[in-house]
Amino acid sequence: MSSETEPHEVRDPGKRVRFFDTSLRDGEQAPGIHLNQREKVEIAHQLSRLGVDVIEAGFPISSPGDFEGVQAIAREVEGPVIAGLARSQDKDITTCWDAVKDAGKPRIHTFIATSDIHLKWKLRMDRAQVLAAATDAVRLARSLCEDVEFSCEDATRSDVAYVAEVVASAINEGATTINIPDTVGYTMPNEFQKYLLELYERCPGLADVTLSVHCHNDLGLAVANSLAGMHVGARQVEGCVNGIGERAGNASVEELAMILRTRADDVGGLWCEINTEEITRSSRLISRMTGYVIQPNKAVVGRNAFAHEAGIHQHGMLANPLTYEIMDAKSVGLARSELVLGKHSGRHALQHALEELGYSLDREAMAAVFARFKEVADKKGELSALDLEALMGDEMRVEAVGGYVLSGFSLTAGSEDPPTARVVIAGPDGTRVEQEASGDGPVDALMKAIDAAIGSSGKLLEYSVGAVTSGMDALGEARVVCEIDGRTYTGLGVSTDVLEASAIAYIRAVNASRMVEEGERVKEGV
Amino acid sequence: MSSETEPHEVRDPGKRVRFFDTSLRDGEQAPGIHLNQREKVEIAHQLSRLGVDVIEAGFPISSPGDFEGVQAIAREVEGPVIAGLARSQDKDITTCWDAVKDAGKPRIHTFIATSDIHLKWKLRMDRAQVLAAATDAVRLARSLCEDVEFSCEDATRSDVAYVAEVVASAINEGATTINIPDTVGYTMPNEFQKYLLELYERCPGLADVTLSVHCHNDLGLAVANSLAGMHVGARQVEGCVNGIGERAGNASVEELAMILRTRADDVGGLWCEINTEEITRSSRLISRMTGYVIQPNKAVVGRNAFAHEAGIHQHGMLANPLTYEIMDAKSVGLARSELVLGKHSGRHALQHALEELGYSLDREAMAAVFARFKEVADKKGELSALDLEALMGDEMRVEAVGGYVLSGFSLTAGSEDPPTARVVIAGPDGTRVEQEASGDGPVDALMKAIDAAIGSSGKLLEYSVGAVTSGMDALGEARVVCEIDGRTYTGLGVSTDVLEASAIAYIRAVNASRMVEEGERVKEGV
Repeated sequence: MSSETEPHEVRDPGKRVRFFDTSLRDGEQAPGIHLNQREKVEIAHQLSRLGVDVIEAGFPISSPGDFEGVQAIAREVEGPVIAGLARSQDKDITTCWDAVKDAGKPRIHTFIATSDIHLKWKLRMDRAQVLAAATDAVRLARSLCEDVEFSCEDATRSDVAYVAEVVASAINEGATTINIPDTVGYTMPNEFQKYLLELYERCPGLADVTLSVHCHNDLGLAVANSLAGMHVGARQVEGCVNGIGERAGNASVEELAMILRTRADDVGGLWCEINTEEITRSSRLISRMTGYVIQPNKAVVGRNAFAHEAGIHQHGMLANPLTYEIMDAKSVGLARSELVLGKHSGRHALQHALEELGYSLDREAMAAVFARFKEVADKKGELSALDLEALMGDEMRVEAVGGYVLSGFSLTAGSEDPPTARVVIAGPDGTRVEQEASGDGPVDALMKAIDAAIGSSGKLLEYSVGAVTSGMDALGEARVVCEIDGRTYTGLGVSTDVLEASAIAYIRAVNASRMVEEGERVKEGV
Repeated sequence: MSSETEPHEVRDPGKRVRFFDTSLRDGEQAPGIHLNQREKVEIAHQLSRLGVDVIEAGFPISSPGDFEGVQAIAREVEGPVIAGLARSQDKDITTCWDAVKDAGKPRIHTFIATSDIHLKWKLRMDRAQVLAAATDAVRLARSLCEDVEFSCEDATRSDVAYVAEVVASAINEGATTINIPDTVGYTMPNEFQKYLLELYERCPGLADVTLSVHCHNDLGLAVANSLAGMHVGARQVEGCVNGIGERAGNASVEELAMILRTRADDVGGLWCEINTEEITRSSRLISRMTGYVIQPNKAVVGRNAFAHEAGIHQHGMLANPLTYEIMDAKSVGLARSELVLGKHSGRHALQHALEELGYSLDREAMAAVFARFKEVADKKGELSALDLEALMGDEMRVEAVGGYVLSGFSLTAGSEDPPTARVVIAGPDGTRVEQEASGDGPVDALMKAIDAAIGSSGKLLEYSVGAVTSGMDALGEARVVCEIDGRTYTGLGVSTDVLEASAIAYIRAVNASRMVEEGERVKEGV
C-alpha cells in the first residue's frame, strides 16, 4: 500500500471540487482578528498561490474598511474568483457589486436564513417574506453579475422542504452556486448526506448548478461533513486556512485538500486544484497576521503533524518513514530549503529571498524592510526564512498613515523593587515625549509609561510572546489584545528583545484604536 | 428543534460507549511533553472526575518514571479501570501487571502491529510470527489479569483477513476488548465502517467482546472515524483530552462526548457516562501541564468555541442564544461561578476554593501553596479561579527532591545598551551563587546568567509567555522548551513578572535535565 497516491493522471472534470476560501470573511470575523488592508491583500495573494478557486474577500457593507479591503483584492489579486458577502437586501448587494466589480472574475454571494429559529429570533420574518427576499436578492445580484452564489443560512436546522423551495427560486433567478451551510456546526455526516440527497430530490434544478457546502466545526465534524457532502454531489467546499472562523471555526482547507491528495484512491475520483506545497506558508502567514495560534497537534499544519519534524525516532521510522507518515512533509511545503541570510547579505540577496517567500515589494517598501533587516541582522547574526516572514508580517502592521512610534526605552526590574520603565515616544506630528512609570511587572510598567506619554488608556485582555525561531537570540513576537474605548484592538511587535516587542505591540494597538473611524461593524455570515 | 437534547431517560445498556482516555500514554508521548508523577496523578484524578471508563496511565516498561507513574495512579485513583500498555513480549506484560495490579480495576493493554509495512520495517517478523506473539501475549496477560485489551497496531493499513485471524486468536486466549487502531490517521469514515463490518463477518467471536476504536487525526477525521466506528458496533472509543497525542493527535474526548450529548437524537441511542461539566477543567489542566496550547477555534474547549464567551453579539444572539449556540456553555463547565480571592483571604478560604477547583492538598502542600498565594495576592490584589489553577499547576512542577531555585534577580534593559541580568541561585545543597551576564535580549541575558551560575548549557528551542487572566497585573506564565545534553526538556514558570517567570521556567528545565536518570525512553503505541 502506498502512503500517498499521486494525483490521478486522468481527471474527470465532473469530479473536480472547487475550493472557496473564506479566511478573509468568516475567518476575519472571529473575535480579536483585525486585519488591515495591506494584510488582507497579502493574504489574498497567498491564497491565490495556494490555488483556491474562490476568495471570499469580505462583507463590503459591514464597514468602510471591509469595502476597501474587498475592492483592493478585486483590483490586485489575479487568478481566483473574488467574492463579497451580501445579505438579501438591495443596498448590501449593490455595495457588494461596487466592491468586487473590478475583479477579473467577480462574484456576489448573497444569503438569508431559512431556519424557523433564525426567522423568529433574528429576521422576524415569515417563510413567505424570506422566500420573496431571497428571490429579489438573487434577481438583483444576477442583473449586476453573472456569477451569483446563494446561501440558506442555518440550512441544516431548516425544514428541507422549505429550503428546496427557496433554492428552486434562487436557481430560477439565475444563481449559479447554491451553498448549504451547517451554520452552527450541528449536523452529522450521515444526516447531512440524507439532507442533501433529499434536497436534490425535491429541487431537480440543483443538478444544473454547483452545490456548495459550508461546514462549521462546533462538534469537530466540519471536515467530515464537507467530505460527506462531496460524496453526494457537492462540487464546491467552503473553508478557512487553519480552520479559523466564527466560534470553533470552519472546515480546514488544508485538511480537505490533503484528504483528496492522500486518499485519492478512496474518494471516488474527487480532485481539486490546491497547490498543497503552499499549505505551510499559507498557514503561517494567516496564523501570524490573525494572531491565532496553531496547536502543536493540529492536523497537517501543527508543529508535530509530521513525525520526522517532531523528532520522533520510533523504531521503524528511520528505516522507512511510511511506517508512521502517510503524507510527505514536502507535499505541504514544509521541507523547503532553509534559506539563511547573514548580516553581510545585501539588498539584492534580501530581495531574492523575499521573492522566494512570495513577497513582491515596491522600492519604498523594500528600503524600509532592508533597514529593518540590517538592524535585526546586526543583533542576531543570521535570519532564517521564518525570521524574514515574521519581519514582513511586522512591517505590514505599520500603517502608511502616521501613528505613535517607540523611539527608545529603558527598564530596570528585579526581585527587590517594582520595575520601572522609561519610554520615548515620537508622535505623528514629530514631537517626542518622554515618560516614566513603574508597574506590577515589566510589561505593565512599559504600558503605563506609554499611556502616560500618549494619553491612552487600554485594558489588556490578552498578552502573549512567542519566539519565531529557535535559539537564545531568536526574534520574539509579542501580541497584545486590548480593550480601548469599549472596542478590542490587536497589536503585534517583533524584536530580539521581548520587552521592546511588547512595547511596540501595545503602541500599535493604541494606533489602531486612533485610526478606526468606522461605526459599529456588522458581523454576519452563513 | 431544540439546540441540545437531554440525555435519554431510558438508556439501552447495549448502546453504552465506554471512554478510554490515553492522554497519559499516547498524549504524554507527544514531543516536548514531560509530566512528573505528581502531575500524572493529578491529571488521572481529574479524568476520574470527568467520568472516563478507562485511564491508560502509561507504558510501564518504557522507563522507571513511567512505571512509577502508572503504579501511583493504580494505587491512588479510584473509579476508572487503570490500564498500562505492553508490547507483545513477556517482560513488557509482567512489568505492566506489576504496575497496574494494585488498582481496583486493572487492565493490561497489549498490542502488536499487523500491517505488512510495520512487519517488514519495524518488527522484522512474518505474519506467522506475529500471530504467535499476539497469541502468547494475550495468554500471558490473561493469566495475570482478567481484563485484557489487545490492539492490532496499524490495523487500518493491514490485510483485514489477517487481522481477523489475529483477533480471533486473541479472543480465543481470553482478550476482553479488541481495539482496532487507525494508527497513522489514514482511514476514511465509510472505509472504516466497511473494514469493521468485514472484520465482524470474518471473526464472529468479535461480537462477544468489546470492540474498541482508536483513531488518529492526521487528516482531521479522528472524531468522524470514531463516530463511524460506534455506528457499526464499537462500544469503546479511545481518545485524549484536547485531542493531544502523537503527530496530529488522537480523537478529542470532549468532541466525542459532546456529540453524544448534543446529538442524542441522531446517534441511534449511543450514550456515555462522561460528566461533560468537567470538560473545561480537564482541558485547562492538561493544556497547562503539557504546555500544549489550545487554539482559540478548537471545538468545545477553544476560547471562542462558545459564541457568548467570545463576545459575539450578532443580531439574534441576544434575543435567543439558540440562534448560534447548539451547546450550553454550562454543559461543559464553562460558566461556573467566578470565584475570586483577595489578599486578605485566609488559609481556610483558599482551601475551600482549591477544593471547589478539585484539588485536595495535604498539610505541607497547603502551607506551600498558601505562602505562594499570599505572595501573589500582595502584588496582584485578587486572584480568580484561573489564577489559582495556574499557581497550582506551577506548584506541582516543583519536585519534592531538591533542585536549583531562583533566589533573586535584577535586570536592566533598553534601546541603547545590551541588556544585563544578575541572578542569585540557591543550589540543592543550600549554597548561593550570584552571576551576571548580558545578552541579545533580556531573556537571553537571564538565561546566560543562570547558565553561568549553575554551569548548565541549554539550547532554547521554544519560548512563549501568556497571561493567565486579563489585566495589566495578570499572572504571566512562561514556558521554555530546551535541548540539554541532546534531550528535550520543558520548564514552566508563573509570576506577575514575565522576566521572573522566564527565569524560573528555564531553571526548572535545567532541574528536569539533572533529575532524569532514565535510559533512552521507549516510545510505542497504537
